[in-house]
This record gives sequence, structure tokens and C-alpha cells, in this order.
Amino acid sequence: MQLSNFIRWFACAVLATPTLFAGEGKWTPQQVLQLDPLMLRKQGLELPVSRLWDPKRGSGLLAATVNIGGCSGGFVSSAGLILTNHHCLFGVVQEHSRPDRDLITNGFVARALEEELPGKTTRVTVPRKFTDVTAEVTAAAPAGASDLERSKVIDAKQKSLVAACESVAGSRCRVAVFDGGLQYVLIESLELSDVRLVYAPPRAIGEFGGEVDNWMWPRHTGDFAMARAYKDGKPYAPEFYFPIARNGVKPGDFVMVLGYPGRTVRSLTASEMAYQRDFYYALREQLYGEWIRALEDSTKDNASASITVAATLKSLSNVYKNAQGQLAGLARGRIIEKQQAHEQAVSAWAATRPAFSKGLEAKRDLDARASARRETATRDFLLQAISNGSLALKHATQIVRLAAEREKADADRETDYMEREIPRLRLRMDRDQKSLFPPADQAMFAAWIARALKLGAGERIEAVDRVFGSGEALKTLTYLYQSTKVTNLAERLQMFDESLAQLRARKDPLLGFAFLLEPELRAFQAADKTHDGAVARLRPEWRRAVIAHAGKPVASDANSTLRVSFAHVKGYMPRDGVTYLPQTTLAGMLEKHTGIEPFELPRAILEAAKSADAAKVPLNFLADADTTGGNSGSPTVNGRGEMVGLNFDRVWENVANDFGYNPDVARNISVDIRFLLWLLKDVEKADNLVRELQPAAR
Amino acid sequence: MQLSNFIRWFACAVLATPTLFAGEGKWTPQQVLQLDPLMLRKQGLELPVSRLWDPKRGSGLLAATVNIGGCSGGFVSSAGLILTNHHCLFGVVQEHSRPDRDLITNGFVARALEEELPGKTTRVTVPRKFTDVTAEVTAAAPAGASDLERSKVIDAKQKSLVAACESVAGSRCRVAVFDGGLQYVLIESLELSDVRLVYAPPRAIGEFGGEVDNWMWPRHTGDFAMARAYKDGKPYAPEFYFPIARNGVKPGDFVMVLGYPGRTVRSLTASEMAYQRDFYYALREQLYGEWIRALEDSTKDNASASITVAATLKSLSNVYKNAQGQLAGLARGRIIEKQQAHEQAVSAWAATRPAFSKGLEAKRDLDARASARRETATRDFLLQAISNGSLALKHATQIVRLAAEREKADADRETDYMEREIPRLRLRMDRDQKSLFPPADQAMFAAWIARALKLGAGERIEAVDRVFGSGEALKTLTYLYQSTKVTNLAERLQMFDESLAQLRARKDPLLGFAFLLEPELRAFQAADKTHDGAVARLRPEWRRAVIAHAGKPVASDANSTLRVSFAHVKGYMPRDGVTYLPQTTLAGMLEKHTGIEPFELPRAILEAAKSADAAKVPLNFLADADTTGGNSGSPTVNGRGEMVGLNFDRVWENVANDFGYNPDVARNISVDIRFLLWLLKDVEKADNLVRELQPAAR
Repeated sequence: MQLSNFIRWFACAVLATPTLFAGEGKWTPQQVLQLDPLMLRKQGLELPVSRLWDPKRGSGLLAATVNIGGCSGGFVSSAGLILTNHHCLFGVVQEHSRPDRDLITNGFVARALEEELPGKTTRVTVPRKFTDVTAEVTAAAPAGASDLERSKVIDAKQKSLVAACESVAGSRCRVAVFDGGLQYVLIESLELSDVRLVYAPPRAIGEFGGEVDNWMWPRHTGDFAMARAYKDGKPYAPEFYFPIARNGVKPGDFVMVLGYPGRTVRSLTASEMAYQRDFYYALREQLYGEWIRALEDSTKDNASASITVAATLKSLSNVYKNAQGQLAGLARGRIIEKQQAHEQAVSAWAATRPAFSKGLEAKRDLDARASARRETATRDFLLQAISNGSLALKHATQIVRLAAEREKADADRETDYMEREIPRLRLRMDRDQKSLFPPADQAMFAAWIARALKLGAGERIEAVDRVFGSGEALKTLTYLYQSTKVTNLAERLQMFDESLAQLRARKDPLLGFAFLLEPELRAFQAADKTHDGAVARLRPEWRRAVIAHAGKPVASDANSTLRVSFAHVKGYMPRDGVTYLPQTTLAGMLEKHTGIEPFELPRAILEAAKSADAAKVPLNFLADADTTGGNSGSPTVNGRGEMVGLNFDRVWENVANDFGYNPDVARNISVDIRFLLWLLKDVEKADNLVRELQPAAR
Repeated sequence: MQLSNFIRWFACAVLATPTLFAGEGKWTPQQVLQLDPLMLRKQGLELPVSRLWDPKRGSGLLAATVNIGGCSGGFVSSAGLILTNHHCLFGVVQEHSRPDRDLITNGFVARALEEELPGKTTRVTVPRKFTDVTAEVTAAAPAGASDLERSKVIDAKQKSLVAACESVAGSRCRVAVFDGGLQYVLIESLELSDVRLVYAPPRAIGEFGGEVDNWMWPRHTGDFAMARAYKDGKPYAPEFYFPIARNGVKPGDFVMVLGYPGRTVRSLTASEMAYQRDFYYALREQLYGEWIRALEDSTKDNASASITVAATLKSLSNVYKNAQGQLAGLARGRIIEKQQAHEQAVSAWAATRPAFSKGLEAKRDLDARASARRETATRDFLLQAISNGSLALKHATQIVRLAAEREKADADRETDYMEREIPRLRLRMDRDQKSLFPPADQAMFAAWIARALKLGAGERIEAVDRVFGSGEALKTLTYLYQSTKVTNLAERLQMFDESLAQLRARKDPLLGFAFLLEPELRAFQAADKTHDGAVARLRPEWRRAVIAHAGKPVASDANSTLRVSFAHVKGYMPRDGVTYLPQTTLAGMLEKHTGIEPFELPRAILEAAKSADAAKVPLNFLADADTTGGNSGSPTVNGRGEMVGLNFDRVWENVANDFGYNPDVARNISVDIRFLLWLLKDVEKADNLVRELQPAAR
């Protein structure tokens, strides 16, 4: 091969196709309309932008993208059929699984509407209207307000806007904050609370590769499931839905990923990022690692206990692996260093422009706060972590807090304890019982206490010291678990409705600990609110400078609102000497099948694969879309707005893109719609669903 | 990207360059002259074939390829400088390492001839003459000889040919068997026994990636070292040596790999291959796995013991991983099934040609023998494995055998115990002491006994039953280790010179076990010889049919004789969704550096890398050369006969190519000569060596 050939080879192997447009940016519907339509057309968008979103009607193809229990999903039929990830509907599958009807293992197919299975807590929201309420919200804070006051006033204003909005029946509303408070948007959605499971593949397909392959490429996971939204007892008829693409994708193809990305932190300053790295992620990696070991050790050789903690273990492992990836990706991508360099450029630019002197000052202030927060960072982390660890501890603190909040007027309460949230909170407390295995729960609690007892002198948790500081912490804890009624479902649900006085009268030792902890939790949360208030004052100033310096639309951090990312199907080089191709096939899934979980395929798949050309059944694909948690189940659609796949993961090298987009490794993973169709047709013989997804009339 | 672009992309990413010539075939020097010179030129050979090998003079560029202690190597200067792998010279490095002069960790550079370090047992042989002696050897076996007689007579004939050949001072000779006896070739080499260590990199470079990366790609290992051959106390001046290429390689380039591949088994019938798979490799994987755990467990938390067993552990791990790879590769490449299909084609072709009826009969006979051997296959494996397990057991059996053989005339002895071998055997028994940690050795012995005690009724080892069959095997073994003198170096070396009577008089319990075992070992070896005799009778007949069916030169199985493989630099697809590029760089090595062994780079490398463009320092490369064990240290040369690298490994997917060449995954790994030059120049500042490798005059 001549050198010119080599260069061509290298270029084509590595780059696949020259990209005109970096995939960076999770654009809001409003921003999509501000982007250059010609540029979008060149990218591969074949629809007029107005088909995506019509701000006046509050509708368009984007409205077919729903939020389903914290995940994303998309309508795929005129009868309310929703496609999302298997892991997003796993709770419903679990809810209906019984020893004699193991839907987790066997999967589920509703062959008629009557067979569909209602999910107790699953809700779908369909976006309807976005209203800029920045002026109203910011006007609420009087000049000279303290940071805590500011935070509270802004909070109250948001609540009143939401309450007014939700006075319309069936509406679910929220105020979303952009750029730390540069913009506030009231989002009105239609809430559908009757959601039923239609299809779930066997877990061995939906989670093929399990924790081993999680975040990994090449991937071969059939991570999808289907639900149907009902309204007034009838299948909901959405105004828009995504037709299933007749042709699949190939390397270089344009795709859009639509969904509700949860949270990114790219607008943090480098110092704030370093704080997150050094405390939030580093401590997460440590504590969650301990929790995972605690769960594994305490359920070893106990099959039923293993099942009980399976979902918790899965969720902890996911967070743990994510923390590891964030730490590795931050270092590898030198993301904080790049942020610092970018800040310096913005600062130098702003220094000569008096209009941005407040921005520069705000940045210095943000950095100083990040520095000051380090002093109690470990304690703050532990207090925050209560909501993800021991269920007993979480429930006890929630019960005490709920009773306290109930004594206030609804509008004065914390958002999570307002009347509208109470039914959901109660359902979760009910459902949690399925995941509670007390010895495992106690082991997690013990790990938390051990860390709390090791805190520095300046950040002790007094409640822990008083109850567990005697040197007999484990004995005390065992006594707590033996005596408390919080772990008993019936008792707990009764506590849920009791007043502070009634709870005190119980003299339950775990509630006693929660009562001791309550003022410290409140103080920490107040400090957090004060910090939020300061940030709401400072960050907009600094972001204003950053955006002005860019001189073009800048995508805001993810905040669980509807976004679009424009991308291309594309592989990458994970490390020296290796190129990842952007597509995998059923053949690769069969290659991975060892017969040992998580690489154990059901017999039906192995049988059906025999009569398929497995190398021609596409399974997963990569694109350079800008995604994060919450994008699970996002419709991946082609330039004509047709669904080609469902986003379900990012690659390991791309986990730290929450801090910054790195085009070399920014890849999301979708499951190819053609695999779903193959599965429904050739394996499940679910003709009813195939017909609904591919109506002959089209 | 349009479909045509995709196809082009895919084709160029995966195939790199269309290959005119499959890399299959380890060609002898004589065969190279039979290949089509025009075809070789099209491949990229720029030299006339006669420059590679001149059979009349017994010389040519191939003569610059030496055998160095079972490895391959190449002369690279007019003053006898030899380049080979670090792992090939590791024994010499270890020999000269002391706690206060840790050459293993720090590496070694001789900055002048006087500083070079002699290797006690290292020998270099330079090929000089190849003579076909088939007629003489086969004529030695009288018509109607039994298989055992035939085997013994052929053996004796070979010995007499070797003895005559070695009567010339400095000659080292052997008779090599091709195609199971279709051809016998007397090979005369010059033996150089004064070999000195010139350069070894720190182990962290020479073994970078250790067992984790062993057999793996992408690879970043600086697996080379240098020695110098001396003759009569002066640097040896070879007639030929490999100049160092001025330009490196790039994807698609033609390369040749020259060396001494040890043993392949492609001429076995499918039934014989299945026997190897089911017993040899399957049992190896099991027993070696147990030995590895035994070594690890018994040296845990004991740093000095860990050092003692390090080399043994490394060698066991290598064999273990190889066995795993053979088993996986046989299954994945369906190699035995393909061999079966090929045999059927040959058989169908031969069935209509009476000249090959003996060949067909021979094949049926070979298959029947493979089937019959299964009955005692596990016992046979254990008896064979003695030479790789417990040193105490190995030494005891060798001492007893040596004393017995010494009572015979030299020519009647087994080859390994002839006078010419005795000094080397003694040196090995001496050097083994460095690797002996009795508790670990005992644990390996125990694992062997445990398996022997579980043998089927038809294949018991009587000596084991008598000594260890009481149900107190471990106690007995402990007593043996406490009482024996075999593990004491001085005593052992004394035993080495003793007669059978003297050894018996010692009443050493371990020698006692060896005496009991001796008749069973002899019986097994006789059966093995009988089998060899039968194979020597049968295989040539069958191979004659196979070769006639091919109608073109067919490369014989590797047999530790000089071979050439023609290849191209080329990546591969290890699995669905992944392409391996054929080259790695220093940048990838730095990426892998975690600071934790085996990914811990010396500070000097990290420092030097700072001022290098690491992505431009090539490190390892792949080609589709046909290699196996023994090819370690093989010169990898370009079409002009210039050295571009040194072969040191195959990829994991290619381990089973000992059974058959699979062009999709047949890749060997070389270390790029440019990395060596960078290391010598920029890290070691070894100007003397750089000048010798790159004389300005060229």
C-alpha cells in the first residue's frame, strides 16, 4: 500500500465520514428554531424545522417524545403505544412477576388490549406548552434579599406558577431553570396516569451483558419495552407519533435523539467541577462500592434475598460504575483543565468589557464558594446519600419530615412534601418493601455510620455521635433493627399518616434517631438552599458573559426538560490500536452467548437465530449524540422523523461528558428498531404488535 | 454517507489492502527456491530469492537468523550483535541479578565490550548446511520390522548421522523430520557457546502488560534484548547480518518473518487433533491452572518466595493461557471440522487413484490409533507432565534415569541422556535451584498426585498407588519433602554423578518413589516410541496423498528448523463491532500506564516521553505471518531484507493456528525496531549501541 493509500485508509477507518457539525448541544425546542435551517438540512434533516416544533400551538413531532417515569419514550402508534427501554419499565415487570409467572425471566407479550398490565406508579407526561417566566420569577426577589430569602422567594414563586398551571385538570407543570437562573420556563404537560405494560423481552435480552457490558461497546442489548397510555379508560390518541423507519441506519447517517436528559454540569466553573470530582464522585465511588459489597455479602447463598435486593444492586452498580467513569473521563479528557482554559479566555475577553464586570465578579464568588464548601463536603455528601442507601433510614427520615411539613400550609412546604406529591411518596414507601431485606439494609446502614464516625472535627454529625458514638455502633444498630417498626410495611404506612406527636409517642428507636438527625438535615438543607440562592444570583451573571463571548446559541445544561441532539451514526477509537465500528449485529450477540448469565440467551432466540442471517440483523448502534441520564428510552429518529432506534446508554469513555462534550468519544448507544421487529416477528410471533408498529396502509 | 461510501469505508477499514497471497506457510529455505519468484516479487520481495538462500554455499540472508536457546534471533552487526526477545534472554538477566544490582528491574546496558555479561547456558547456532538424508534413514529400517524396532533403528540412524556430522569441531547437528517421516534432513550448524548479554530493558518495558496483555492486542511491549556471540574470545563476525531499516513499516507493507518455529500439528488427522484437544489441551488447562493456584497460594505474603517462583509462574501461565486459546480457537475456527472436510476431499480424490491406496489405509490406521490411545490418555498426560511440574519429582526421575542410562554405551542411550547432553542437564539442575521454593513445589506435587489417584481403573499408576494410595497422601508427601535430599543443591549434584547402586543405598524416599515410577515411565515411553514408529510408517503415506492432491508446494509442520513466512502488516476484526488497527504507539503505552504493575513505566521512560511526540513513536505491529512458539525473537524484515521489527507473540484469536491457519485472525505481533532505537537513543543514551546498529557509513 502506498502512503497515499495508507492516509486514505487511516482517514476512512477512523473518521468514517467528515462531520459538518459537532454533535455537541442538547437543544431546547425553542433553540432548534434559532439554529440555521440550512445547516440542519445539510446535516441531514429532511423535515422543515417547523414540523419538529410549533411554539404557538405548543406542538410538533417533539410532542411525541414523552417522559415516562424519569425516562424518555416515544409514541409509536395512533393508539398510545409507547416505546422505551426495558430498564425503564422494569419496575412494572417486577410488580407483576410472581414465582409461578416469572415475567422478569420470560418476558411479557400482551396479545390483546385486555392482557396489558397496569403499572401502579408509572406516569407519562406529554409536553404541551413552554412559557418564559424569567421576568416574573426574578422580579419576585426583592432587591437586597439575602441568599436564603432569595432562594425561598424564587421557590415560592415557582410553586405558585405551578399551582396555577395545574389547576387545569390533567395538567402536570413545572418551572425549569436554565443556566442557573438566567432563564425560567414554565412547562405545561398532559399527565397520563393509566399506563400499561404491553411488551417486555426476557431479561436475558433486555439486559443482555448485564453489569459486565453496562456502559460498554461493542454492545448487544435488546433494551426496549412497550407500554400503552390510556385516558379515560381508552387508549390515548396522541396528536403525533413516530412512524417506524422502513430502512435502517448505516454509518454516517444523520439521526436525532429526542428526550429528557436529566442533569449535566457543564456550566459549573472549573473550581466547582473540581469540587464535584473530589467529593461527590470520589465519595460516591467509595460509599457505593461499600454498599454493593454489603448487599452481595449479606445475600450470598440466599436466592430469595438476592432477588429482593436485585433492583437496588443494579441501581447502585450503575451509579458506582458511572462515578468511576466520571473520574476516569475527567482525567482522560482533561475536561476540568479545558474548562479552566475556556474560563480564562472568557475572562480575558470580558475584562475589557465593562458590561461583564459583574460576570467576572460572580465567577470569582462562585469559585470562592466552591473552595469554602470543601470544609464540610464529606458530611454533606453523607447526609445527601441517605436517600439512596438504607431504606429504613430513608423511610424514618421521610416519615419524620413529612409529619413536620404537614403542619404547614401546603404552599409553605418543601416541594417534595406538598399534597400533590404525597400519594406518590406513599406508593414508593409501599413498593420499597419488595426491595427490603433487613440484614442487607442494616449492612448498608452500618457502612454509612462507619463513615460518619470517621468525619473530621469540623463536620461531625451530632445525631450519629450521640446514638452510635459509644464504641458499640454495630450493637446499637442491631438493637435498632430489632426494635424498629419502620421496616414493617403496615406499621410504616400507618406512621405515614401520623402527626409528630403520635410518632414521638411510639418511642421507636429508629424514629428517635431520625428525630435527632432532623435538625441537622434541616440545617444542611438550609445551607444548601442559601448556596442555591447565591448561585441563582451569581451563575446567570457569569453565564451571560460566557454566552456573549460565544456569540451564537449555547445549549444549556440538561435539566430534565425536552431536548434534541443532532448527530451521526459513527464509531470511535477507544484506545491506541482499536477502532470501534458503529454497528453490531445478532451474530455478535450469539458470539457472546456462553450460556452463563449475563450472557445466556433464551432458547427461543437461539432457535430463531438459526434461520436468520445473524450478521444481517442489526442490534445496537453508536452515534455522536449529546446525551446523559434521563435520555434512557429516547427515540432515535432519522432525518424524516421516523424512528430508527431507542437510545439506552452512553459508552464508558463518554460518561464524563456531563462535564464537557468530547467529540472523540462522545457516543450514545441505541438499540436498532430492526432488532425489535425481528424479535417481535420471528421470536415472539406478536403479530398484533408488528401490525400496530407497521400498519400496512403506510 | 451514501451506500457506496459505506461499502468503501467498510472495505477499507476491515481489509486494509487486498492481499494477493495468504500468509499461510512456514517455508523451508529449500522450498523458498521452489516458490514462484514473480509471485514473491508481486508480494513485495525486492531481493532476488537467491540472496535469501544459496543451497550450494549453504548460506544467504537466512543464515543471519540464529537459534538462541530455543528462541529465534538475528545478527544485526558485523561484530556478532544479536537481537532477540527480552523473554528469550531473561534467564541471563536473572542469572546476573543480585539484590544490590537488580538487572531485572533496572535493565542492563553494556557500554563497552568488557561490560557484557556471559550467559552460563546460552548457546547460539548458525545454520550452515541442509542435507536430505531420507534415503539413508528409511533404508535403515529392515522390511517387516516391528514399530518399536523401526522407531529404535530410525533413532539410531539419526544419532549416527549426527555423531558423524558433529565430529567437525564447533558443529552442532540434528536430523529434522518433515511430514512425519516423508523427509529427513541433516542440519549442520555452527554452535557458538560464548554468548554475552549486551542490552536488556527494564522488565517493566520488556514485559509491559505482563500476563494481562500476554497474547493480547493492542499491545505495547518492548520485548527485545541484545546479546553478542563470541568465538575464540572475540566478537563473532557473521557472513550475513540484517541492516536496520531506515524507514519503518506501515499498514499493507510486505514483511518476512524468519525463525525457528517449534511445533505445529497441522498434518495430524482430524481424529488425532480431537485427541489432542480432548486430552492434551483440556488436561493442560486443568492441571496447569491448579499449579498456578498452588504457586500463588503458597507464596502469598512472602516476597522472596514470590521472586523465587516468578519465572516458573510466568512459564506456567503462558502455557495455561495458550491451552485456553487453543481450545477456544479450535472451537471458534471450527478447525477440526475443516480438517475433516479437507480429509474427505483428499480421500475422495485418492479413492480413484490406486497409487494412493496405501495412503488411505494409513489414514484409517492413524485414526484407529488415535481412538485407542484415549484409553490411557489421562495417565499418559500425567507422566509426560512430570517434566514441567514439581522440580523435586522431575529431578528425582532424571537422576534415576541418568544413572540407568549411564550403564549403557553412549549410542544406545536415549538422546537426552547422551554424553553430549550431560553438561547441559547438570547446569539446568544447578540453575533450577534458583526457582525452587519447597512449599510451592510440594503443592504442585500434591496436585499431580491428587489427579493420579483419581485415574480410571484401566490406567492406574502403580507407583502412586503404592506410595500415596493409603488415604494419607498429603502426610506421606510432607514426609517425603522433609526427608529427601533431592531438593538440596549440593546433594543433588552429587546424586547426579552416582550409580544406580549408590542411589539405592541412599534410601532417599523421593528417589525411592522415582525408582518405583521408573519402569512405568519406561513402559509408557516405549509405548510412545512404538506409536512413533507406527506414525513414521503411516504418516508419510498419508501426507504423500495430501501433497499430491494439493498439486503445489505444501509447507510442512514446524519442527524447530529454519523457516520463512511471507506476510503483510495488517489488522483484523476480533469480534463484532471491533477493528484492530495493525500498529500501536508509545502514546498507547503511556495511556496504559497506571503506575500499578504490570502497567508501571520506569520514570526514565515517562520523562523521555515528555519531549517525544508519543503518537509518532511506533511500538508494536501486526502482520499475517504464520508463526508459532520458537518464533520468539524472529527477525521481521522488509522486502529489502532490512530488519523492521522482532516477532514476539501471536494474538489470542490465533493461538489455535498450530492446528490450522485462519486468515481472518492469523496475526503475529512484532515490536517495532523504531521503538528500540528511540529507547536506546532517548532513554538509555546508549550511543555505542546506536552506532553499532546504525553505522553512519551505510
